[in-house]
Amino acid sequence: MNDIFADRISDVPRSFIREILKVALDPEVISFAGGLPNRDLFPVNELTNATNEVFQIYGNDIFQYSNSEGYIKLREYIAQNYNRQGLSVNPENILITNGAQQGLDLLGKVLLNDGDGVVLEEPGYLGAIQAFSLYKPSFLPVQVSEQGMDIDGLRNVLQQNKAKLIYTVPNFQNPSGITYTNENRQAIAQIIQDKQLFLIEDNPYGDLRFSGEPALSFAHYLPEKVIMLGSFSKIVVPGFRIGWIVAPDVILNKLLIAKQASDLHTCHFTQYIIYQYLQKNNIQDHINKVAQQYGEQCQSMLASLDKYFPSNVTSTKPEGGMFLWVTLPPQVSAMELFDLAVKEKVIFVPGTPFYVNKNHGNTFRLNFSCTDKPTTEIGIKRLGNALKKLQNKV
Amino acid sequence: MNDIFADRISDVPRSFIREILKVALDPEVISFAGGLPNRDLFPVNELTNATNEVFQIYGNDIFQYSNSEGYIKLREYIAQNYNRQGLSVNPENILITNGAQQGLDLLGKVLLNDGDGVVLEEPGYLGAIQAFSLYKPSFLPVQVSEQGMDIDGLRNVLQQNKAKLIYTVPNFQNPSGITYTNENRQAIAQIIQDKQLFLIEDNPYGDLRFSGEPALSFAHYLPEKVIMLGSFSKIVVPGFRIGWIVAPDVILNKLLIAKQASDLHTCHFTQYIIYQYLQKNNIQDHINKVAQQYGEQCQSMLASLDKYFPSNVTSTKPEGGMFLWVTLPPQVSAMELFDLAVKEKVIFVPGTPFYVNKNHGNTFRLNFSCTDKPTTEIGIKRLGNALKKLQNKV
Repeated sequence: MNDIFADRISDVPRSFIREILKVALDPEVISFAGGLPNRDLFPVNELTNATNEVFQIYGNDIFQYSNSEGYIKLREYIAQNYNRQGLSVNPENILITNGAQQGLDLLGKVLLNDGDGVVLEEPGYLGAIQAFSLYKPSFLPVQVSEQGMDIDGLRNVLQQNKAKLIYTVPNFQNPSGITYTNENRQAIAQIIQDKQLFLIEDNPYGDLRFSGEPALSFAHYLPEKVIMLGSFSKIVVPGFRIGWIVAPDVILNKLLIAKQASDLHTCHFTQYIIYQYLQKNNIQDHINKVAQQYGEQCQSMLASLDKYFPSNVTSTKPEGGMFLWVTLPPQVSAMELFDLAVKEKVIFVPGTPFYVNKNHGNTFRLNFSCTDKPTTEIGIKRLGNALKKLQNKV
Repeated sequence: MNDIFADRISDVPRSFIREILKVALDPEVISFAGGLPNRDLFPVNELTNATNEVFQIYGNDIFQYSNSEGYIKLREYIAQNYNRQGLSVNPENILITNGAQQGLDLLGKVLLNDGDGVVLEEPGYLGAIQAFSLYKPSFLPVQVSEQGMDIDGLRNVLQQNKAKLIYTVPNFQNPSGITYTNENRQAIAQIIQDKQLFLIEDNPYGDLRFSGEPALSFAHYLPEKVIMLGSFSKIVVPGFRIGWIVAPDVILNKLLIAKQASDLHTCHFTQYIIYQYLQKNNIQDHINKVAQQYGEQCQSMLASLDKYFPSNVTSTKPEGGMFLWVTLPPQVSAMELFDLAVKEKVIFVPGTPFYVNKNHGNTFRLNFSCTDKPTTEIGIKRLGNALKKLQNKV
């Protein structure tokens, strides 16, 4: 029976995170495992109004089949947003996708032959590993740290391999929460400027900055080599599944063929609702509110880690986004900690699935967007207890 | 620059139909070229009410990320619908997709290695040719006629080739409007019952029957070998992009991994709206209304073809759906007719793109769902004039 399947599907890692999330169904469990925006902050009233307006203004126009590129006014809005940051983006270079995840799939479809080199951050975004795996590339992992991508590591990897893509989440990365410095971005741009490859800048969290100063997009340095992915999932709602790709003409034309073949077009109804919402509301006020709350919850988590964890446990100090990254002493296993943590009724995601090489067993990801400050403190205290039990056992 | 792309994307035919539709922007042109349901029949008021109810009942629950399988109540509704027809479908065997088009992409992703055999109807659905092309199969065309698939042709093709998939649209096929008879279905089932392959029954139009008696689904004969695709696009609205796949467990598990990697999940908001609409309205009444109007428009088109076309031009006599298929005398080119028809301000889709072998230049597709009876008569009269001019030229 097994030979009925395509080879490509056997290479896709199952989402360990989805398995973990089943434990989270117990209401007594405090979950730092998810990767969800905080549902209490969704602008439901505003979206209700926007939806009613869309029905009133457009009637049955928007329920018909539509173009594969996406709603032009929404694409104009997105382009203007980039251009306010000093970039030069044309609405014709934007394709609306079903969340940024579909952008990854379409890019894999259009660009990757079997064995093509794809530089991945280590640790890296699991959804990208899954999406690209279907196109059977050869993954080229490069470490990331608080400064960004390891420059020597990148240089070595590109000297020893022909890479077609470099995949990055340079702002408040999932899973680590780190942000590439401007110097780091510039150094990367210098390394790749003469190479025939594309750099994907996946930026779902970039707007959710709660401290520090914004860094420049890679598109400032190498506009013709950068493909940008964006999404309304973290700043409006994820359930509408509205993301986008910004790509040079030559790539966009191929992406459009792939989009047509994949699902004709993204739901126009939700595109119109988002656009109407953006017209009638100050999205920046909303983003500020979300970022502020995430910042407070992050601070609370960092303070609790200080209080309940020994000093040989370290963590990243995110300036935005939804995640931070904890490193245990080298000999301590996050998977073993996970088993004890479940008994203490707290969960997180062990670091292993975020590595292609699967060899950093002493790390894990914590999500801070969905738990309020008191719950965060209780959860981290439980986690500290689990660690004590693990270390007494060792 | 060309070597930056994956080989698979170079094999995808561009949609000739989309090119044609640009001509349709001229308001004086009567278009029989589209493949759209009639927008005047969309249940917009009912969907407006359903949407408001969804906001009231579910609040911010439905705007969060959700499961990849789709809304369980909608899947239960779909399963019950099949089971009322005597099938035995479990909601766990249903995956909600972004229209049935995404079902084709996911099936290609999960099942097709380079060069795998895929039996295609000739003429066949262009969207399927596009979706599968990305996975570089070897297409095995088999003729269809008013009875269904050519049984000898199918037997020969399967003797000479190893096929993994047979793709069919057995009810009111796009592009031809034909329906497989029960005898034809049974004969196909007999041929494939001992072979290790799957038959895809793509059935977007099946509910839109305006004459004759329904035939049995292939799943009646070979439940373990049949994958069914369905969609709300033709019976509610296409803009919501809600379709589904019904597949055996072993296939569905793989499809689910591919769906996760492709776009995480289909928009839940529109799934809930459709479900709410189905709860509060008699969908069968709505379907009857749509089917009746399409039937009247089809009759009007057939009568006009009789009136304005010479007797050596033949057409299919659909019992439902949205299309019929015209065959000109062998030496007459539908592409040349198209050029003259544009001047007469009427358009259609020449048959060539619906053939993998591209050698049936004397056929074309007419859509009857979007033009009322008087417009249909004017349009067919113009087309008859264009044909006269073409034949006088020859």
